[in-house]
Amino acid sequence: MKRILVIGIGSGGMQLLTLQAIDALRTADVVFIFDKGEAKGDLAHLRKEICARYCTEKPYKVVEIASPQRDPTGSYEAGVAAWHAERAELAAQAICENLADKRTGAFLVWGDPALYDSTLRILETIKSSAVVDFEYEVIPGISSIQVLAARHKIALNTVGEPVLVTTGRKLAQSFPAGHASIAVFLDNGDGLRSLAGRKAHIYWGAYLGTDDEVLVAGPLQDALERILELRGTLRREKGWIFDVYLVRPLADC
Amino acid sequence: MKRILVIGIGSGGMQLLTLQAIDALRTADVVFIFDKGEAKGDLAHLRKEICARYCTEKPYKVVEIASPQRDPTGSYEAGVAAWHAERAELAAQAICENLADKRTGAFLVWGDPALYDSTLRILETIKSSAVVDFEYEVIPGISSIQVLAARHKIALNTVGEPVLVTTGRKLAQSFPAGHASIAVFLDNGDGLRSLAGRKAHIYWGAYLGTDDEVLVAGPLQDALERILELRGTLRREKGWIFDVYLVRPLADC
Repeated sequence: MKRILVIGIGSGGMQLLTLQAIDALRTADVVFIFDKGEAKGDLAHLRKEICARYCTEKPYKVVEIASPQRDPTGSYEAGVAAWHAERAELAAQAICENLADKRTGAFLVWGDPALYDSTLRILETIKSSAVVDFEYEVIPGISSIQVLAARHKIALNTVGEPVLVTTGRKLAQSFPAGHASIAVFLDNGDGLRSLAGRKAHIYWGAYLGTDDEVLVAGPLQDALERILELRGTLRREKGWIFDVYLVRPLADC
Repeated sequence: MKRILVIGIGSGGMQLLTLQAIDALRTADVVFIFDKGEAKGDLAHLRKEICARYCTEKPYKVVEIASPQRDPTGSYEAGVAAWHAERAELAAQAICENLADKRTGAFLVWGDPALYDSTLRILETIKSSAVVDFEYEVIPGISSIQVLAARHKIALNTVGEPVLVTTGRKLAQSFPAGHASIAVFLDNGDGLRSLAGRKAHIYWGAYLGTDDEVLVAGPLQDALERILELRGTLRREKGWIFDVYLVRPLADC
């Protein structure tokens, strides 16, 4: 049997690695990396640095799996489904070709594999397709939203109240009323823009946990324009941006 | 100026510590621990083990801060507010008496200080009371809900959909309709019992990340009774229980 570890490496620098993740890296014979096909060279570089520092117990091989672009035409659900299927096929092929029986492969995942990451779904798809069989384990990692909260020195929840964790796409579709705290992942900017005119406090952060980390917090009326401008500038300069934020609607809205 | 680090040590064993948490522990002169006054000897023991293993750079002092019981009479909000105020006073006193200027104190927090933990709020209360001044930083930790997801090998979210993070108390008050995934913290059992008769899938876990870890998953109609029975037995046997779960209502409900 082949063994696969899905390792959450945290969102940001090497310091977010857990001891469990490091132990897992040490057992890897093959490290699989999804190449997102984007200008995320910095992240790919950090991932390789992590391997170089911690995969020291035995020689290891890094296998990059090409990650096709998601088709933006048609419905979101159909686009995601087709994209998952394509990635699953490429990943299955990479596993077949590179991971011998009784060997351990590691998928390195930014942040936590449990939040808005498709690696687990891709592995389940491969397993159910029966193209290649393997056992797998998951190692949790620190998510970007946790780094955001730590940097702003806040809890995500207010006392005893729920937190809605959602995406920029959902937020832009319709504002979720009645939530004391809304944590937003995967925003292309539409979610932020949809907040214009609302009465709320925002805690925003980009490139969290890295040297380029930027934080902004304040009432939306003061902070939103600044965030959108900063976001545009940084994105142009670096070629990519990764940001998350927490919105706290004011009680009277 | 005094310096305080609020360190998320993860929910469970030592393996969940991040490198950042370990570095932070090494700089601590005084380690503050809230004694929850409950039969949580196992957790207190693990916390001391962590100090013994990682606070090795300099001699350190462990200060236990008594944690009064929350008054269960009256409203939840008033009870929590009074409890916070009392804990803040005791913590301020502990800081004044034990942490000299230019020294570093560490508050060790189970899981992540950003989720359903009051340490950050207590420190803010102390700072605004101006009884004692300090700077502080927060180090995120792996939350129990992340360990739950990792053990069950699932993402908390379904594709592109939100996750409601809530408490057992809120769940028992009224079932939050229209959410694809509901993650539940701080349940005394009322939240679980309120799920009887619903059509949903549940992923449950107790003592996550420890040797006593227990996992149950399945459709509510099969799993709920088993979980409630197990929960009662384990609680009696060990004197305490810490559990979290994820509920996935079936689409047609």
